[in-house]
Amino acid sequence: VLRDAAVTVRQRLPPRTGRAFPLRRGQVLTVIDPLGEQVADLIAFADDDATEHLSSGRTLDYASTLRLTTGHVLYSDRSRAMLTIVEDTVGRHDLLYTPCAADTFRILYGDPGPRPSCEANLISALATLGVARRSMPTTFNIFMHVEISGDGTLHVLPPLSRAGDHIALCAEMDLIVGVTACSADLSNNHRFKPIDVEVSA
Amino acid sequence: VLRDAAVTVRQRLPPRTGRAFPLRRGQVLTVIDPLGEQVADLIAFADDDATEHLSSGRTLDYASTLRLTTGHVLYSDRSRAMLTIVEDTVGRHDLLYTPCAADTFRILYGDPGPRPSCEANLISALATLGVARRSMPTTFNIFMHVEISGDGTLHVLPPLSRAGDHIALCAEMDLIVGVTACSADLSNNHRFKPIDVEVSA
Repeated sequence: VLRDAAVTVRQRLPPRTGRAFPLRRGQVLTVIDPLGEQVADLIAFADDDATEHLSSGRTLDYASTLRLTTGHVLYSDRSRAMLTIVEDTVGRHDLLYTPCAADTFRILYGDPGPRPSCEANLISALATLGVARRSMPTTFNIFMHVEISGDGTLHVLPPLSRAGDHIALCAEMDLIVGVTACSADLSNNHRFKPIDVEVSA
Repeated sequence: VLRDAAVTVRQRLPPRTGRAFPLRRGQVLTVIDPLGEQVADLIAFADDDATEHLSSGRTLDYASTLRLTTGHVLYSDRSRAMLTIVEDTVGRHDLLYTPCAADTFRILYGDPGPRPSCEANLISALATLGVARRSMPTTFNIFMHVEISGDGTLHVLPPLSRAGDHIALCAEMDLIVGVTACSADLSNNHRFKPIDVEVSA
């Protein structure tokens, strides 16, 4: 299996792309919004068994909040701690939505494509690391700004992140992670920008 | 593969149990709370490919609300319509949480078990129909009453369902579904009750 090189220096994901890389236990992944108002979808799989994945349902249950920020832990579907948020300059992210996909552009916006999507970008990037998927679980959508009305209605608003804002996550186990510079118009205030990632040595 | 018989007359799930059965396109599944204040976790898989499953993230994206009720559609991870809610006498259900599991009782309540859980009940029931799973995706937690504070905090409250309240879902494709009478204390106002299910002929 061809394995993507570890990210040890700051690297830039061009707009509407994704990449995947190993993240060893104890390493810290920092995701930076270099220009502001740009979402990065993050997914994680166990390195020793790629059927174990980040679980929105487990994570929300244990955190008892939708506002995940510094100190909160992202859990797998088997209730193992995968990532701890150790720094967060924004404090607003989403853990409700699956990544944007060809189907979402078609169903929500009538766009038949083809066009880039976070789901396709994650599937492609993860495949090079031996993680074979037909779809993605709910991702941790970094900087994605979702407001919920009193009647439960979901509103996707421009991210609160400004240039240089970032979030840092410490790996609690050996992982394969995927990260994108999100491809959805609405999530990114209609401008597609890059995302920077850096992993501690 | 041994296949569970279809449910064609009203059947009762004893407290803290689960069952699975085929649901053909066009059939209507009615889930009834016979005594009130009892949650039923529901999951669905495509009959022709059990790797395709109900997706919380896709469903919330297309519905743009957390308050799923009559008229809303439950989608798969591949964006196929699985179930349409055609009747709902309560209007309050949850699509955020994965089902209660041994791990959740241990982590949230310090209960080392063993004790019944919706996840274990669904895994066992679905295995008899050839759906092999290590964990469950986020389930549609019928009658589960979750309130969200303005700061994003999640509160699990007693269900709003009273004796005889029900929800009916029409299958949009051939499915294998699993349903439980939920085993979590908090979700059911600390009394474990049965759940009734009925499928149209």
